[in-house]
Amino acid sequence: MAIEGIDLIKAAAYLGAGVAMGLGAIGPGVGEGMVGAKACEAIGRNPQQAALLTRTMLVGQAVSESTGIYSLVIALLLLFVV
Amino acid sequence: MAIEGIDLIKAAAYLGAGVAMGLGAIGPGVGEGMVGAKACEAIGRNPQQAALLTRTMLVGQAVSESTGIYSLVIALLLLFVV
Amino acid sequence: MAIEGIDLIKAAAYLGAGVAMGLGAIGPGVGEGMVGAKACEAIGRNPQQAALLTRTMLVGQAVSESTGIYSLVIALLLLFVV
Amino acid sequence: MAIEGIDLIKAAAYLGAGVAMGLGAIGPGVGEGMVGAKACEAIGRNPQQAALLTRTMLVGQAVSESTGIYSLVIALLLLFVV
Amino acid sequence: MAIEGIDLIKAAAYLGAGVAMGLGAIGPGVGEGMVGAKACEAIGRNPQQAALLTRTMLVGQAVSESTGIYSLVIALLLLFVV
Amino acid sequence: MAIEGIDLIKAAAYLGAGVAMGLGAIGPGVGEGMVGAKACEAIGRNPQQAALLTRTMLVGQAVSESTGIYSLVIALLLLFVV
Amino acid sequence: MAIEGIDLIKAAAYLGAGVAMGLGAIGPGVGEGMVGAKACEAIGRNPQQAALLTRTMLVGQAVSESTGIYSLVIALLLLFVV
Amino acid sequence: MAIEGIDLIKAAAYLGAGVAMGLGAIGPGVGEGMVGAKACEAIGRNPQQAALLTRTMLVGQAVSESTGIYSLVIALLLLFVV
Amino acid sequence: MAIEGIDLIKAAAYLGAGVAMGLGAIGPGVGEGMVGAKACEAIGRNPQQAALLTRTMLVGQAVSESTGIYSLVIALLLLFVV
Amino acid sequence: MAIEGIDLIKAAAYLGAGVAMGLGAIGPGVGEGMVGAKACEAIGRNPQQAALLTRTMLVGQAVSESTGIYSLVIALLLLFVV
Amino acid sequence: MAIEGIDLIKAAAYLGAGVAMGLGAIGPGVGEGMVGAKACEAIGRNPQQAALLTRTMLVGQAVSESTGIYSLVIALLLLFVV
Amino acid sequence: MAIEGIDLIKAAAYLGAGVAMGLGAIGPGVGEGMVGAKACEAIGRNPQQAALLTRTMLVGQAVSESTGIYSLVIALLLLFVV
Amino acid sequence: MAIEGIDLIKAAAYLGAGVAMGLGAIGPGVGEGMVGAKACEAIGRNPQQAALLTRTMLVGQAVSESTGIYSLVIALLLLFVV
Amino acid sequence: MAIEGIDLIKAAAYLGAGVAMGLGAIGPGVGEGMVGAKACEAIGRNPQQAALLTRTMLVGQAVSESTGIYSLVIALLLLFVV
Repeated sequence: MAIEGIDLIKAAAYLGAGVAMGLGAIGPGVGEGMVGAKACEAIGRNPQQAALLTRTMLVGQAVSESTGIYSLVIALLLLFVV
Repeated sequence: MAIEGIDLIKAAAYLGAGVAMGLGAIGPGVGEGMVGAKACEAIGRNPQQAALLTRTMLVGQAVSESTGIYSLVIALLLLFVV
Repeated sequence: MAIEGIDLIKAAAYLGAGVAMGLGAIGPGVGEGMVGAKACEAIGRNPQQAALLTRTMLVGQAVSESTGIYSLVIALLLLFVV
Repeated sequence: MAIEGIDLIKAAAYLGAGVAMGLGAIGPGVGEGMVGAKACEAIGRNPQQAALLTRTMLVGQAVSESTGIYSLVIALLLLFVV
Repeated sequence: MAIEGIDLIKAAAYLGAGVAMGLGAIGPGVGEGMVGAKACEAIGRNPQQAALLTRTMLVGQAVSESTGIYSLVIALLLLFVV
Repeated sequence: MAIEGIDLIKAAAYLGAGVAMGLGAIGPGVGEGMVGAKACEAIGRNPQQAALLTRTMLVGQAVSESTGIYSLVIALLLLFVV
Repeated sequence: MAIEGIDLIKAAAYLGAGVAMGLGAIGPGVGEGMVGAKACEAIGRNPQQAALLTRTMLVGQAVSESTGIYSLVIALLLLFVV
Repeated sequence: MAIEGIDLIKAAAYLGAGVAMGLGAIGPGVGEGMVGAKACEAIGRNPQQAALLTRTMLVGQAVSESTGIYSLVIALLLLFVV
Repeated sequence: MAIEGIDLIKAAAYLGAGVAMGLGAIGPGVGEGMVGAKACEAIGRNPQQAALLTRTMLVGQAVSESTGIYSLVIALLLLFVV
Repeated sequence: MAIEGIDLIKAAAYLGAGVAMGLGAIGPGVGEGMVGAKACEAIGRNPQQAALLTRTMLVGQAVSESTGIYSLVIALLLLFVV
Repeated sequence: MAIEGIDLIKAAAYLGAGVAMGLGAIGPGVGEGMVGAKACEAIGRNPQQAALLTRTMLVGQAVSESTGIYSLVIALLLLFVV
Repeated sequence: MAIEGIDLIKAAAYLGAGVAMGLGAIGPGVGEGMVGAKACEAIGRNPQQAALLTRTMLVGQAVSESTGIYSLVIALLLLFVV
Repeated sequence: MAIEGIDLIKAAAYLGAGVAMGLGAIGPGVGEGMVGAKACEAIGRNPQQAALLTRTMLVGQAVSESTGIYSLVIALLLLFVV
Repeated sequence: MAIEGIDLIKAAAYLGAGVAMGLGAIGPGVGEGMVGAKACEAIGRNPQQAALLTRTMLVGQAVSESTGIYSLVIALLLLFVV
């Protein structure tokens, strides 16, 4: 059999990258949607605070985005560095 | 057996690409739907703020979209670069 | 055994395409349904803003659709390009 | 063993087609149900806007249907073209 | 071993048909139930619009039914044409 | 080994039939329950419209039943025709 | 090995029967519970319509029961006819 | 190997019986709980209708129980008749 | 190999017993909790009907318990009779 | 190979015991939590009925506990008697 | 191969212990959280009944804890006695 | 093959430890979050009872924590004692 | 084969570490989010109690964090000590 | 076979890293979204407390983020240190 150990490692790394990014996009995607939904609702009620609310929304989403970025980093590491 | 190691790697990469994009589309799809739903509701109540709300909706959705794009990037990398 | 490596790759790619499109249709399908549901509700309350709300609904759904299209792209790439 | 590589490919493609269409019908089915439910509710409250609301419902459902159609396309491609 | 490649293909196709129709019946079944539930509620409140609401319900359900029919088509194709 | 290809096919078909009918009964069962629940609620509030509401309930359930029947058809085909 | 093809078929059929009936009991069981719950609520509010509501409940449950019966039929067929 | 075909069949039947009864107890258990919960609520509000409500509860639960009994029947058949 | 067919059967039966009782305890456990929760709520509002409500709760729970007992019976049969 | 049939049986029994008790603790745990939550709420509103409500809570929880005890019994039987 | 039967048994017992305790901690954890949440809410509204409510909370949680303790017992038995 | 039985046992124990602690952290984590959320809400409404509510929160969380600690104990036993 | 027993043990330990930390981050992550959400809500209503509420939030989150830390500890032990 | 033990270990570590980060991003992502959503809502109602609420939001999210960071740490350790 011509399958070397490095092939098994690479196959696991690529499959792992797909799982990491696929699952890792669920949480931030839903979480940021919650933030954006409430921000739209709040701006609809209180439009003169739109700038403040947009800023809050972006800050809140940025933190939630972080775990998505971690997943991206792990996936990229699994693709290129490993 | 004529299966070489590179074949196993490619098979894992292609399966991983499918998993990454498939799972990665769930979170943003639902999250952006929440944003859009609340934006429609808010515009229905406060139509004179439609421009502001549409802009907020698009910004909120764009951030939520990001994890979907990460998934796309990982899937494309798994398809072509790896 | 007459199974070559390219066969294993293609099998994984086709299975991956099915998974990518199948899972990738869940999120946008539900998300766009949320947007459409709220748009109908809002138009029912405020029919004179129907044009504005329909436009907002379509914009919101278009963004949510994007991850579904990403899935379609990945699935098609897995079918024909790989 | 008389199993050739093309048989493995075809088996994966057919299984993938089943998964793609089966999972791909969940999202749009539920999403369109949400739209239709809210449209019925809105027409019950505001029957003189029935034409407008039916049109909005159909547009909203058509967009949500799109990911279901993508799944159908991928499934058909897996069945006949591949 | 007397298992030919065509047998493996057929087995995958039949299993795929079961998965496609089984999963594909969940979404439309639940979605159409939502539409019907809201239609009953609306008719109970506004019985003189029963004809209009029944028509809307049927239209909304018909669109939601479509993905179920796609699943049926794919399952039948997997059974007889493939 | 005395397992012929036709045996593998039949085994897959029978397992597929079980999956198709088992999963296919979830959606319509829940969906029709929603319709029936709302119909009972509506009749309790507006008993003089019981005939109209029962008819609407039955029509709504009949459409939702359709995907269950599709599943039954596919399961029966997998049992007897294949 | 003394395992004949018919044994594999029968094993698959029996496992399939268990899956079909097990999964097939979830949907109707929950759905009929919803109908019964709303019927009790409605009778508690409007006891003089108890006969009408009980009849409606039974009709609504009977339709929801149908997919459970389909599952039973498929399971029995898998046990005795196949 | 001393495993005969009848052993494989019996093993599948016993595993199938466990799955059928295990899954088949979820739906009725939850559904009957809904009925009973609403009946308690209704009796608490309207105690003079307790007899009527208890009867309705029992009828509603009996129908919901039916799918549980189907599961029991299939499991017993898998244990003793097959 | 010293594994006889009866061993495989017994192993499947014991695993099946665990699955049957494990899954079969979820539905009744949750369902009876719903009944008890609503009974406590109702007694808190209407303490002079405590006897009636406790009786109703017990009757409602007893029916819901039935599927749990079926699971117990099947599990015991799998342990001792089979 | 030194694995006898009795070893396979015992391994299956021990795994089955873990599954039975693990899954069997979910339902009663959640269900009893519902009962206790509503009891606390009710006592908070109506403290002079605390004795009555505590008794009702304990009775309701005891019934819900029963399926957990069944799971314990099955698990113990799988551990020691089998 | 130097794997004896007792090794397989022990491996299954240790894996089963992990599953039993892991799954068995979900139900009580969530259920006790519900009780505690409602107790805090009730004390916040009615602080002079804090002693009574804390006692009720502890009793309610203790019963819910029981299934968690059963899981612990089964896991410990799987670790040390078996 | 140089894999001894003790290796298989240790591998199962380590995998079991991961499963036990991973699953066992879900329930208490969510449950304690519920308690903390309601405590914050109650203190926000009734700040002069903050000490009492914090104490109640901690007691309620401590009980919910217990199943998490059981999982920790089982995981540690699987790591070091077994 | 050059795979020694220690390799199998280490592979299981590393996989177990991933599972423990991955699953173990779900519960605390969601639970702490609930606490933080309610704390923001409460501070928005009652800003002069911000210090008290922030402290309560942190205490509540710290307890919920504990199971996440347990998971971290188990994962680290699986990585380095085992 | 040219697969050494170190290859199996590395493959397990890379797959484990993907699972740890993928699952570990779900909880914090959703939890932080809850916090951000409520913060936007609260600021929309009480804009003059925006600084206080943003600070509270960030503190609450930071704690929830911690389990995501633990997952990142474990994943990185699995990639580079192990």
